[in-house]
Amino acid sequence: MGRWVSDAPGRLRAAALELFSECGYEGTTVADVAARAGLSERTFFRHFADKREVLFDGSRALEREIVAAIATAGPGPSLGVALGGIAAGARVLEVAVGHERARRRARLVASSDELREREQMKMAELSDAVTRALAARGCASGEAGIAAGVAVVTFQAAFAAWTGGDGEAGLAEELSRAVGALATLAAGVRPREES
Amino acid sequence: MGRWVSDAPGRLRAAALELFSECGYEGTTVADVAARAGLSERTFFRHFADKREVLFDGSRALEREIVAAIATAGPGPSLGVALGGIAAGARVLEVAVGHERARRRARLVASSDELREREQMKMAELSDAVTRALAARGCASGEAGIAAGVAVVTFQAAFAAWTGGDGEAGLAEELSRAVGALATLAAGVRPREES
Repeated sequence: MGRWVSDAPGRLRAAALELFSECGYEGTTVADVAARAGLSERTFFRHFADKREVLFDGSRALEREIVAAIATAGPGPSLGVALGGIAAGARVLEVAVGHERARRRARLVASSDELREREQMKMAELSDAVTRALAARGCASGEAGIAAGVAVVTFQAAFAAWTGGDGEAGLAEELSRAVGALATLAAGVRPREES
Repeated sequence: MGRWVSDAPGRLRAAALELFSECGYEGTTVADVAARAGLSERTFFRHFADKREVLFDGSRALEREIVAAIATAGPGPSLGVALGGIAAGARVLEVAVGHERARRRARLVASSDELREREQMKMAELSDAVTRALAARGCASGEAGIAAGVAVVTFQAAFAAWTGGDGEAGLAEELSRAVGALATLAAGVRPREES
């Protein structure tokens, strides 16, 4: 095995998904994952902080994509800008991960409390990042937090529909459905000034 | 110490909050908490599954309150019903916990990744419970999930403003501000039919 191995993180991710699916998350060690990938445990820990993280490191790339789209968006209402950022991130995620891998990963996360906690935490961190990105555009802090939270909830609904479905509808399509549902729901909440 | 001690959970909660604040969450053991409350470790574990749970068992009562309010609400748009349920839960929570205790607890949770993960998980569980309560009223499943998520995000924003503030504004008032902000934001998202 050469010292420089191309795409070690990608191989470790694929090996982890395979082994966790075959033997369960709890029943698999970092050593098992590294061995399956033909790499050392040390290489694993050079790329991932712990066993859980190998399933979650894509969330950082998603966050960067969303934040960049928000920072460079034209003027518009905060929630619309946040949802536009989410849509940009979803497009990249859909291509990078693909339906089959996303579906297997979602099943795995649902099977373990520990993984579900990490997933929720990642979504909370994404929401914080979107809040900061909106605030940097001048959105008032109370509004920014709510707009970010609502946008992330909409993303989660679309992601769940995508990974829970047969892949016929893509993530982008599920997101546009979720935004449609949000718009319908939002019509039921009236601004205080109007009441 | 008698065998029947009145309000053991309440005493354990208060002792935990004191000790976690004084010595840090990591530096405090269940044995320490039990000793401070004048109770045994066994009594602790009769009431709480683990060390973290002593800070989170109120979320079950909050959830019950919110779900009951949604189940008994009159007809109305889903998101309005969900927000009404949240408001009913917030009223009970505000009285039961009080600003000072909520503020200390929030600071504690923010200080530890482990506690923040559990908090996010509780909010995800609350969102699932609200989703089921809305679905039981006949709300379509895609919409129910988004309405529930949006209502919980609004609650979290109000709760953060309340616990981060000086207590001048109550939780109910912060919630009504957050709903106002949500309504303003929502006005920026148009239903697809209209576009």
